[in-house]
Amino acid sequence: MSELPIAQIGRIIKNAGAQRVSESAEEALGKELEQWAEKVAIQAVTLAKHAGRVTVHASDIELALKEIA
Amino acid sequence: MSELPIAQIGRIIKNAGAQRVSESAEEALGKELEQWAEKVAIQAVTLAKHAGRVTVHASDIELALKEIA
Repeated sequence: MSELPIAQIGRIIKNAGAQRVSESAEEALGKELEQWAEKVAIQAVTLAKHAGRVTVHASDIELALKEIA
Repeated sequence: MSELPIAQIGRIIKNAGAQRVSESAEEALGKELEQWAEKVAIQAVTLAKHAGRVTVHASDIELALKEIA
């Protein structure tokens, strides 16, 4: 994972009730999140191009999520 | 969404091939990512507690992902 900051991932896990979080746990969740985001983003880009646009809109993300989830 | 930075989400969408990305698209993907991360994190915290630990380990995240995905 390269884009999503590890500190924020750790904060999400702490907000979920964790007393302590290992660094490898933060990395594991961050990696998974990023892979999932990439998959959704690739589909959203395909949908935007299909609609004749160069800009990815929220509607592209929403349809991509429906198709992937 | 509050934890994951919008700029990084936009970068993931651009890396997927987008020429331009609307702010609402970044927000839509960020919100979804955060909700999904929270769901995984809550399950991971439950699993860590079940194993008698106060620290969330990568193995908790991995098992939570298997249970939720």
